[in-house]
This record gives sequence, structure tokens and C-alpha cells, in this order.
Amino acid sequence: MTDLSFEKPVKVRQRIRENILKKPTSGLCRGYAQGNLVILPKSLAYDFLLFAHRNPKPCPVLEVTDVGQRELKSIAKGSDVSTDIPKYRIYKKGRLEGEYLDIKDFWREDYVSFILGCSFTFESALIDAGISVRHIEAGSNVPMYITNMECRSAGIFSGPMVVSMRPVHVDNIVKTVQITSRYPKVHGAPIHIGAPKLIGIKDIFNPDFGEPVEIKENEIPVFWACGVTPQAVAMKVKPEIMITHAPGHMFITDIKNYELGNF
Amino acid sequence: MTDLSFEKPVKVRQRIRENILKKPTSGLCRGYAQGNLVILPKSLAYDFLLFAHRNPKPCPVLEVTDVGQRELKSIAKGSDVSTDIPKYRIYKKGRLEGEYLDIKDFWREDYVSFILGCSFTFESALIDAGISVRHIEAGSNVPMYITNMECRSAGIFSGPMVVSMRPVHVDNIVKTVQITSRYPKVHGAPIHIGAPKLIGIKDIFNPDFGEPVEIKENEIPVFWACGVTPQAVAMKVKPEIMITHAPGHMFITDIKNYELGNF
Repeated sequence: MTDLSFEKPVKVRQRIRENILKKPTSGLCRGYAQGNLVILPKSLAYDFLLFAHRNPKPCPVLEVTDVGQRELKSIAKGSDVSTDIPKYRIYKKGRLEGEYLDIKDFWREDYVSFILGCSFTFESALIDAGISVRHIEAGSNVPMYITNMECRSAGIFSGPMVVSMRPVHVDNIVKTVQITSRYPKVHGAPIHIGAPKLIGIKDIFNPDFGEPVEIKENEIPVFWACGVTPQAVAMKVKPEIMITHAPGHMFITDIKNYELGNF
Repeated sequence: MTDLSFEKPVKVRQRIRENILKKPTSGLCRGYAQGNLVILPKSLAYDFLLFAHRNPKPCPVLEVTDVGQRELKSIAKGSDVSTDIPKYRIYKKGRLEGEYLDIKDFWREDYVSFILGCSFTFESALIDAGISVRHIEAGSNVPMYITNMECRSAGIFSGPMVVSMRPVHVDNIVKTVQITSRYPKVHGAPIHIGAPKLIGIKDIFNPDFGEPVEIKENEIPVFWACGVTPQAVAMKVKPEIMITHAPGHMFITDIKNYELGNF
């Protein structure tokens, strides 16, 4: 298979659309931002947009479509949100109904699509700065935890914040805070450092989502607000319907990582 | 009258509520952020929130109330948005109907209130850095211009961006960009520097709102997206009703300017 690490997003979205590419998107189109997907009926769009606004660390909104529109005009010209993600999930009343390669047949004219920033952007900035990211080294999914930190509620949406964890050597804590602070549109600065029990995490080696990672000597667990939060919230508040990407199967945008930074 | 420059916001909001204080709020409660007000019926709230999200430079949202709520819980505990601003404006179908000291008698249970960041915060950061701000020195209102830059539309809301202008000495342009870039929640980095004709401004000494200021030798006009944009947009798209603050009569929050910075 062609190496798609340095391919343009428009080309890779085309392969995904044709179901030639069905894999997780990590490592594809280096330098370009990827995003989480949330699709909701218009009747729930205000509550969700307000929820995202009130919780910008877990839910940094990159783009919202007009009602019924499938193209993400400002971040991916010519894209189709119903086909350009390798794997979708449909939740009905908070229950995962199934996974699909596209959602063309389920499309409704009252759908609004939200793309939320994804940690791939700050991870690539950390790696560029010489700070290794454990779960990437290990080839596993980042460990994620449901915390005791409540999101600010908005309309029907409420629930606990989900966080991701990356162990960081004490020598790199300052640099890690500095680098990720520059990217508020992809979860930004850590939300907690060093005392998982304080945020309601009982067993760091038993995450609620993803896989555990090793924490080495002189490393401290660092936590970031996580884009899985809206899925966890939806499972709790049980909206009529909600469509998302499947974990790791992200939407690849035309936005350069650099453009999402505060420089 | 008591000097309120260093008074706590809660005390000053109380004086405003009792109509003891009816003046513009510039210079009050130093160190605390002030905000623009937009009140709309719930039926228009999604379009406006999306408009603000798509145009974060003119419309940086600090807080949105729940429907019918008058307290701005997260930025001003115990506040009442229907009384705590010295002067309000009511627009009906895009026409200014009148100015009022409070809007208690006009309150509707379907109102949603939006507080947008205000340039006072970055102006005070500029002054702290030794960069003088001409209209403050002159004791006049900042000059504002309707540009040829279209906002991204959302639902019923669309229209040109309004900008404010401050002349900056060439020696201070870099520092001015750096300092204001740290405050994206109060319009952030300049939107244009140096060539007003390119953004549709025909006569820099004849602003559309506010008052003209002198531009001295070796000074360049620097433009920022302006919180008057939603009022200008509303006058164009003529929503049934929209309530705002009167220019210069802002909502004083409990948020420290520092908290709005990217540090």
C-alpha cells in the first residue's frame, strides 16, 4: 500500500470515501489536524454547541456545518462528512447500535455536524520537541478515564469529564505544559498533573477507555481533557440519536497543525 | 463621588443596579474584564451562538446564560443582567427603539444573554507595557469602521465586520501584536495593519462609529475586530428584538483581565 504519511488530506479522504482505506487515521497526512465527529439533529444542536462552548477543553469546536450540509467548508473543501471517515458509530438513546463504513443511507436533512479538535496535533508538537509519547511508542490507544470533574451542563447535556493520560518525565513537565498550552483548539494545557486520586481515578492501570501504559521511574502522569467526553455524556443523557467517529478513525482536515497554535 | 477605579465589581454592579451610577464604565474596577451584552430570544440563540463561534475575533463569547436566567453565574455571581448595566439599548426589527437604565419591565422568559469580551482588557495590557492608547489619552470613544470583510454567516446572521483602530508607533508594532495576541477572548491580535483602503475604509478620519483620532508621524493605523459587529449585523438582518448595552456602558465581570490571557 502507498505510504500515506505525507499524502494530501483531499487524496486520503477520497480513499476513505471509496472504502479503500478503512483503518485508524493516526500517522496519516502528517502536519494536518484531524478531528472528532459528533452529528446531532438540529433540535439538539443548540444545547450541544452551548455545552461545547462551556467546556472548551474537552470539546474544542473546529467547525459546525449548516443544517443538512455534508461539506465541512472551512476546514475541508469538497469533503462529505457522511463518507469521509473510515468508521462511524451510531448511538440511539445512548446505546451503541452499530459501526458503519459510511452513513449515506442514514443521512437526515436535519443533521448538524460538529468537528472537535483532536490530541494528535499536540502529540506531534511534543514529539517534534523531543518529548516521547508513551502510547505512540507502544503502538497502543491512549488510556482514558472518567473523572469526578463535572462538565458545566447545557440544556440536556451534562456529565463527567473524560481525560487522557500521558506519563511525562519530571524534566519535561514544564516544556509539556508550555507546548500544549499553545494549542487550545486541541484540548490545550493539561487539566491535571500528578495526583490521579484527586480527580477520581482509582486505578491508573485500569483505564475506562483505551489501554494502560507503563509509568517509568521519575515520570508523572499528566492528564488532558479528552474528546471522548461528548460520547460519554451522550451515553449518559441518551439523546434520540447521535453519530460519531469510531475511536481512532478521525476526520482528516485541510488545516495545518500550525494554524491551530497560538503563536 | 467615591473613586471606583479600584472598587470590587460586585460593589459597582450594586451601584449600577440602584441607578446611582449611570455613566460609561471605562476605568472602573481596574484589573477586571468588562463585556459587551447581546440579549436575544431563544429562537435566535442558536444562530447567534454559531455566528459568534464562526467569528470569534469580533464576537468572543465569555458567557451565555441558560434560557430565562438573569444571573451570569460563571463570570459574575449574584449579578442580574436586566439591571447591572448602566444603559441598555433595545432594537426592534433592526431599529433602535430607545435607551433604558434597566430592562426589568421588558424581561421575557425566553431571553438568552450573551456577554462578549471587550477591548478594555487588551488596552490596559498595552498601557501596562508602556504603549499609549490615543483615544484614551484624548478622552474620546475609539474610532470604528464598517469594513469590506464579510463575517462568516450563520442562520439569519450575516454582514460586514466592524473594526476599531488605534494608531501605533512603528517601534511598537511588534510588541502590540504580541501583547494583544495573548488575549483571544477580547478580540486578540490585530485583524489588519497599515492599509485601511484594502479593508474598505475610505476615510480614516471619518469613522462610522466613535470619534476620529490623530495619527502622528511614524504611526501606523492598527485595526482590531470590534464588539460592535453584532449590533451592526443586527441592524442589517433585523431580528424581531435584540437588547444590547449602550456603547461604553459595559457589563463589569468578576473575571480578572489576567484570566483571559494565554499565558
